[in-house]
Amino acid sequence: MDSYTPTARTQVRRLPKRATYDKEQVHAILDEGYICHVGFVVDGQPFVIPTGYVRFGDQLYIHGSSASRMLRSAGQGLDVCVTVTLVDGFVLARSVFHHSMNYRSVVALGKARLVVDVEEKRAALRCFTNHIVKGRWEEARQPNEQELKATSVLALPLEEVSAKVRAGPPIDDEEDYSMPIWAGVVPIRQQAGEPLPDDRILPGIPAVDVRRAALR
Amino acid sequence: MDSYTPTARTQVRRLPKRATYDKEQVHAILDEGYICHVGFVVDGQPFVIPTGYVRFGDQLYIHGSSASRMLRSAGQGLDVCVTVTLVDGFVLARSVFHHSMNYRSVVALGKARLVVDVEEKRAALRCFTNHIVKGRWEEARQPNEQELKATSVLALPLEEVSAKVRAGPPIDDEEDYSMPIWAGVVPIRQQAGEPLPDDRILPGIPAVDVRRAALR
Repeated sequence: MDSYTPTARTQVRRLPKRATYDKEQVHAILDEGYICHVGFVVDGQPFVIPTGYVRFGDQLYIHGSSASRMLRSAGQGLDVCVTVTLVDGFVLARSVFHHSMNYRSVVALGKARLVVDVEEKRAALRCFTNHIVKGRWEEARQPNEQELKATSVLALPLEEVSAKVRAGPPIDDEEDYSMPIWAGVVPIRQQAGEPLPDDRILPGIPAVDVRRAALR
Repeated sequence: MDSYTPTARTQVRRLPKRATYDKEQVHAILDEGYICHVGFVVDGQPFVIPTGYVRFGDQLYIHGSSASRMLRSAGQGLDVCVTVTLVDGFVLARSVFHHSMNYRSVVALGKARLVVDVEEKRAALRCFTNHIVKGRWEEARQPNEQELKATSVLALPLEEVSAKVRAGPPIDDEEDYSMPIWAGVVPIRQQAGEPLPDDRILPGIPAVDVRRAALR
């Protein structure tokens, strides 16, 4: 796979050695996450809204949110920034100054469009649902026409994209390595707990296997 | 404690029953998280950058990032949207349409200022460090003047703030409750793994107790 071409807007200037434009790595980060933060502008004021998403080929499908209301009036498409962040650990250095986090993040810029074609929307929602819990679309009651209409999906082509990754141990100033201070990484991960069945569930239905759930 | 006053910009219009402006609840969400997504605008284009933060009284201190470069030129303060999102679980309904997530999020709007006073910056960084790992500021080598200068901290007064919370089981359409489909919540939580000591750590230094680490 190839790379995204950095633009003036996606060229990482702060700590550029952490930047990557490699498509495979960008897609891997996007496929591990499931919550994005969508930024858009109304009357000069930025808004940042959390919502679900899924990558499908070279597009991000973003679950309808406040942004879709803006989009309806935008017509041509809405300038957005979609950011996905996975936190991997706390990096504890000997000096406070070199404390950091291990993380992987993707920033995608572009014009989002509202998905209006019913079949595209259905396909996007299928990806979206199965991204959260594998196979869930096939076992749940699928949306009817009215429900499809009531669900907003935005599509953002992945064109102007950058990723930033920090991994590995702390990097201290040479003279600090002799200090008697613990240093290293505290790994952070997500975990699914025991499923809590709904009160009105029919008897004899096995609980969902949590290994099917996305864990980021 | 009282409430934030909703403005035209923070009044939650989509699913307003999930909204809250209660200060205590807003602060509890902010104090549980440690990563925020900062939105700002450059030449009409929104940017959303993940970074660390801590709440201190009625201010958010945000760790220096790309936004601080923007801020230096902004002079008067930079219009930002700071969003913090905690995901609590996947909500699996009988119908795809009613699938959801349990989450708690805060959106804070306002003008961020660059912290220039050295003592304010030091106090903010102390809060920031101890928010990630309790007591870390006191055991690590604290920043010298040069390091303090090299660290950017933004401050955002908490004035125009809203929160959204979804909790509890799925809510299905009445006629779907008779379907033989598992429904309920898969709880999601963060967990700290075994600390990984740095290769060059001095012998005999006990590892950091992960119970001191923030877990969101």
